[in-house]
Amino acid sequence: MLDLYHHGSSVCAAKVRMVLAEKRLDWTGHYLDILTGEQFNPDYLKLNPKGVVPTLVDDVDVIRESTLICEYLDEKFPDTPLKPDSPSGKVRMRTWTKFIDEYVHPMCAVLTFSASHRHTINRLGPKGVEEYLAKTPNPDLERRKREWLALGFKGPEVVKAVKIFDTMLNDMDAVLAENAWLAGATFSLADIAVIPYVNRLEAFTMLSVWQPQRPRVMDWFERMSARPSFYSAIDEYLPESLADDFRTYGGKSWPEVEAVLTAG
Amino acid sequence: MLDLYHHGSSVCAAKVRMVLAEKRLDWTGHYLDILTGEQFNPDYLKLNPKGVVPTLVDDVDVIRESTLICEYLDEKFPDTPLKPDSPSGKVRMRTWTKFIDEYVHPMCAVLTFSASHRHTINRLGPKGVEEYLAKTPNPDLERRKREWLALGFKGPEVVKAVKIFDTMLNDMDAVLAENAWLAGATFSLADIAVIPYVNRLEAFTMLSVWQPQRPRVMDWFERMSARPSFYSAIDEYLPESLADDFRTYGGKSWPEVEAVLTAG
Repeated sequence: MLDLYHHGSSVCAAKVRMVLAEKRLDWTGHYLDILTGEQFNPDYLKLNPKGVVPTLVDDVDVIRESTLICEYLDEKFPDTPLKPDSPSGKVRMRTWTKFIDEYVHPMCAVLTFSASHRHTINRLGPKGVEEYLAKTPNPDLERRKREWLALGFKGPEVVKAVKIFDTMLNDMDAVLAENAWLAGATFSLADIAVIPYVNRLEAFTMLSVWQPQRPRVMDWFERMSARPSFYSAIDEYLPESLADDFRTYGGKSWPEVEAVLTAG
Repeated sequence: MLDLYHHGSSVCAAKVRMVLAEKRLDWTGHYLDILTGEQFNPDYLKLNPKGVVPTLVDDVDVIRESTLICEYLDEKFPDTPLKPDSPSGKVRMRTWTKFIDEYVHPMCAVLTFSASHRHTINRLGPKGVEEYLAKTPNPDLERRKREWLALGFKGPEVVKAVKIFDTMLNDMDAVLAENAWLAGATFSLADIAVIPYVNRLEAFTMLSVWQPQRPRVMDWFERMSARPSFYSAIDEYLPESLADDFRTYGGKSWPEVEAVLTAG
């Protein structure tokens, strides 16, 4: 019996939903509205003391991190394997999952804040912004959010975020020149790890205009979006109001992102 | 044919040497003196464009990151397996390797700089310190080093480093109350991932005095040090002058570390 605690805007939960769909596993969803702080409910904190999503519960096993959940599901349910067979194929796959976890994921929050959340927060007015910042639990994050609000895409951390996404697209382009999928000839956890982040650029209406254009990445994205697992992983759970914000403010932010890319 | 590019003070290279020793694999070592910058030699940069150690070359396969190398060696050479059998055991193991890679490893450089390198650098005098800082390739790292030199164990990042090591020891203590080894009943890549960092505290003469004392961690450390693989992983390659610096300056730094731990 698989129970998944998840949320629609979580890139990490999307990966897990895609693995579940690819393997056609039955699961019970527990949807947490992280925008209203449900991940800090005492019952959820018992399962996941850091208050992050997703968490997978498989009877007595509780797994709290999406890359570990994806590897776990692939080990436990070996039908429709999502890892390459060879040791070197597994290295190629884990090179992607590790790069996403260590570099892209931390910068996705920075990019999402700057391209979208920043605009809804700024509409609160100076007093509302201060009230919003006062609710940030972590002083270091509060300091960073202040900087993101003040500097927009001129802030050093936001510039770094744009460049990490650009590196991701470059690396994808290089690999896809040689292989159909990111870890080689077969679809794998590498593709699943990357798709929510590429899709975030698409949600911001930035993917098709991102310079330089990368037709191989666009072709991969089309093949990914055509998989039946894509809808249940990505589209089904994203709140429509958030999708609207991503589209509207992402489009407005594009000239600033483009300026970062052009400056090199 | 396995070729390992490595260095004695690299915590990551130590993990790989331990896996090679546990599996009794033959390998050819290529020792890079990272203290004189040999990792930036053009030939090495062809293998490892970031100029970091270790790199494993196995015929045509080049693997550039120690956690990936350890998983690769365990897949490719399945005798003496270093992963638990069950999917949930593998999750426990990878929870450790991921925690080390994402939290402890980045802070190990901060702790090592502050507990040891800082003192040798400060002996260069103000002009020498500026010359040293001018050679730092990355402006962000230069800014951080300046702060570490100026603030010592009062700097926010250095306090964070001490606390991450404390969290690691706490988590180890909790797990070792239930299991003989970090991922369960058997020795695994989890123990191998953690030992170089615990040994760093030992090299600073801090492990046995770190408060609160954790007898289960000390017992685990003794069992680890007694393994024949420990010598070839850890002790054989550490330059004696560096071991001396770690001992001397680590001992001198202990009261400052203790003050961070006591402040909580």
